Amino acid sequence: MTTLRIAGGQVLRPDMTVERADVLVDQDAGEILEVGVEAGVGDELLEADGGLVIPGLVNGHTHVAMTLLRGYADDKPLDAWLQEDIWPVEAELTAEDVRAGAELGIVEMIKSGTTAFSDMYFHVSEIADAVDEAGVRAVLGHTAITVGKDEEGAEADMQESLDVALELDGAADGRISTTFQPHSLTTVGEEYLREFVPRAREAGLPMHFHANETEGEVEPIVDEHGERPLAYADGIGLLSPENFLAHGVHVDDEEIDLLADSGTGVIHCPASNMKLASGMAPVQRMLDAGVTVGLGTDGAASNNDLDMFDEIRDAAMLGKLAADDASAVAAADAVGLATAGSAQALGIDSGRIEPGANADLAVVDLAAPRLTPQHDLVSHLAYAVNGGDVRHTICDGDVLMRDREVLTLYEPRVRDAAAERADALVERAGDE
Amino acid sequence: MTTLRIAGGQVLRPDMTVERADVLVDQDAGEILEVGVEAGVGDELLEADGGLVIPGLVNGHTHVAMTLLRGYADDKPLDAWLQEDIWPVEAELTAEDVRAGAELGIVEMIKSGTTAFSDMYFHVSEIADAVDEAGVRAVLGHTAITVGKDEEGAEADMQESLDVALELDGAADGRISTTFQPHSLTTVGEEYLREFVPRAREAGLPMHFHANETEGEVEPIVDEHGERPLAYADGIGLLSPENFLAHGVHVDDEEIDLLADSGTGVIHCPASNMKLASGMAPVQRMLDAGVTVGLGTDGAASNNDLDMFDEIRDAAMLGKLAADDASAVAAADAVGLATAGSAQALGIDSGRIEPGANADLAVVDLAAPRLTPQHDLVSHLAYAVNGGDVRHTICDGDVLMRDREVLTLYEPRVRDAAAERADALVERAGDE
Repeated sequence: MTTLRIAGGQVLRPDMTVERADVLVDQDAGEILEVGVEAGVGDELLEADGGLVIPGLVNGHTHVAMTLLRGYADDKPLDAWLQEDIWPVEAELTAEDVRAGAELGIVEMIKSGTTAFSDMYFHVSEIADAVDEAGVRAVLGHTAITVGKDEEGAEADMQESLDVALELDGAADGRISTTFQPHSLTTVGEEYLREFVPRAREAGLPMHFHANETEGEVEPIVDEHGERPLAYADGIGLLSPENFLAHGVHVDDEEIDLLADSGTGVIHCPASNMKLASGMAPVQRMLDAGVTVGLGTDGAASNNDLDMFDEIRDAAMLGKLAADDASAVAAADAVGLATAGSAQALGIDSGRIEPGANADLAVVDLAAPRLTPQHDLVSHLAYAVNGGDVRHTICDGDVLMRDREVLTLYEPRVRDAAAERADALVERAGDE
Repeated sequence: MTTLRIAGGQVLRPDMTVERADVLVDQDAGEILEVGVEAGVGDELLEADGGLVIPGLVNGHTHVAMTLLRGYADDKPLDAWLQEDIWPVEAELTAEDVRAGAELGIVEMIKSGTTAFSDMYFHVSEIADAVDEAGVRAVLGHTAITVGKDEEGAEADMQESLDVALELDGAADGRISTTFQPHSLTTVGEEYLREFVPRAREAGLPMHFHANETEGEVEPIVDEHGERPLAYADGIGLLSPENFLAHGVHVDDEEIDLLADSGTGVIHCPASNMKLASGMAPVQRMLDAGVTVGLGTDGAASNNDLDMFDEIRDAAMLGKLAADDASAVAAADAVGLATAGSAQALGIDSGRIEPGANADLAVVDLAAPRLTPQHDLVSHLAYAVNGGDVRHTICDGDVLMRDREVLTLYEPRVRDAAAERADALVERAGDE
């Protein structure tokens, strides 16, 4: 057994207390062995002096390769933004583009303390290869859309979502798990949901889909099916403890109860919801009802970065406005969303620093003037830390970043390749 | 004449276009001399290769010494937070504490590209000394509160606000200007406003006060005076082009017209308004009406940092939600709030890169994966840059930070002193 000792720091425990402790990691198993001041010596040492060891953050919903479109189109509502800007460019995306964008996004996440992400996109094998090389953990899948397609095309896309999920599950030494991904309740026709959701369930696949993101998405479902979106989703078999949906902005009390009763996870994406003016998710009400709530950045084009510390702050801030109560979504709860909350929604045993859990960790440097004084480190994590404060990032027991140097991917090459591909992509799309 | 050439970068111009240019600065006058690829050689050189030169950000409303209370009390509504947590500790603040807190806040601002701030606090001569030493620009003043005081105490506090403003105006080689500061429309009695506002006006002093921050602040004024807060303020003579108010969250259309017609500035504090669940200011409506809108962090205790890039992002995000329109408070407008908007509200000739303007500048490094690719640098400033990306900070022609090293204050000493004082302060307050 090879071990790594993360030594000299303070440690954030699952109950959101902070204590002085070392963390001993079994690198072969990729698990945390021991937490405490008496933790064993370890074969390798990682300095956490003056730092805070936290669970690696879990980005519960993103489209990682969309980093190529960061800043390409801003300040537009969801529909126009997708139809006029994003989809036309995405139609030009090659497998190589997706690979370059995924590598860029993963480097960005490693540099900001995120060790796992759940992705929705296409050319998924490229994303899987990037995950494998980079050493992070991911829940991947191919997103299927049926609207605007003929029956054959629609069936093929749904089938591909099933096939990709089955094929890639367990890849990258088990760091990759997968989901079946009907894009949303409005972009996949009912007949396809009724055919494929049971098949995915039979195959044992968890599911990841968009729901209740905008007001404009709720009405057509009520009109067509005579019930609110999540009642409709429940009837189709989409709600279950293995499954999770992104957004959940416009949910009423009955839908919140449905989420809680079914154990379905919700990935809250506050930055995207603000930037697209989609609305304010009732996060405190969901937490009170017992819903599993995680946190995600959504794609970089609607954020515009993948720094989960921004998301934590946004969740705490927006949660208070949504509840009209400054005590709502308190610091510890917001940090919990990005760690245990996301991990639980995604079905991975990360997001907590305890023996037996995945050794997915980040060490946050506390030296910045911005983090002085230190009355309350959990408050700092929620309101003042940002990704640039992360000193080391560890996933599955392996050090992915040491003293801000990414060890698994060569950052300058990743950056240059992505910049080149992004420029060429936009030029290509403009020529159409 | 000694000159500084900021060379090799791109430059953000007042019309929010970006061009490749050098900036030549007259260090004696503290002014920008020339902008262009042919800008003269310069006695000193500052490398801006791969960077974007922007106007130094202007923090329009803060309580800088409150950095000592960062993270001391979170997740509570404004009234309870002030009365239970903040005011009892502030009552213990000594002049030395204020100096230490101000130095910490100023270091934090220099490190995040902020070159000027407008402050509201007490022990103001300590803050002025810190400003003088650090080399930044500031609009300072003593905040007067009359509620809870006898007549003598109330008069004395108002008089002190006048005296301090007259005494410190022009200090620090002209980098300090001042304001008369009645704390708010509810914490200063009408008789004191009616006595002192005309005196401040006669003395030629601009004024800075809190207004329309929470819903609960509006009603008592309507009840007592039979008119909305800003109509009341107007009757007292508080609205004028030299004056500015913080917050302006709960303003109706008539109040927005009053602000526009009078030329009164509004300093929007989105993070504080979210964190205290105060509400969403109608920023786009104010901009459309022609109101001068600036941006501020408010104190670190309700933010919890002084990074104006967070504020820019928050303003763009929250402005969209408030307007229910994703095109509201677009990237360029949000950047404008933190530069020209704040500068105009505060009456300083900063916030724009043009010959003749104050040489208050920051150079933003664009190398981070988070800032790749570069489809639109103004979008990056609004949505993806954070304070840690700032490479150099220049104020009044002098380099205050070079390659992230603060040159005017010794960062480790400032940090340690503030941490020690903060701990002792909280202990003292706990003993009461």
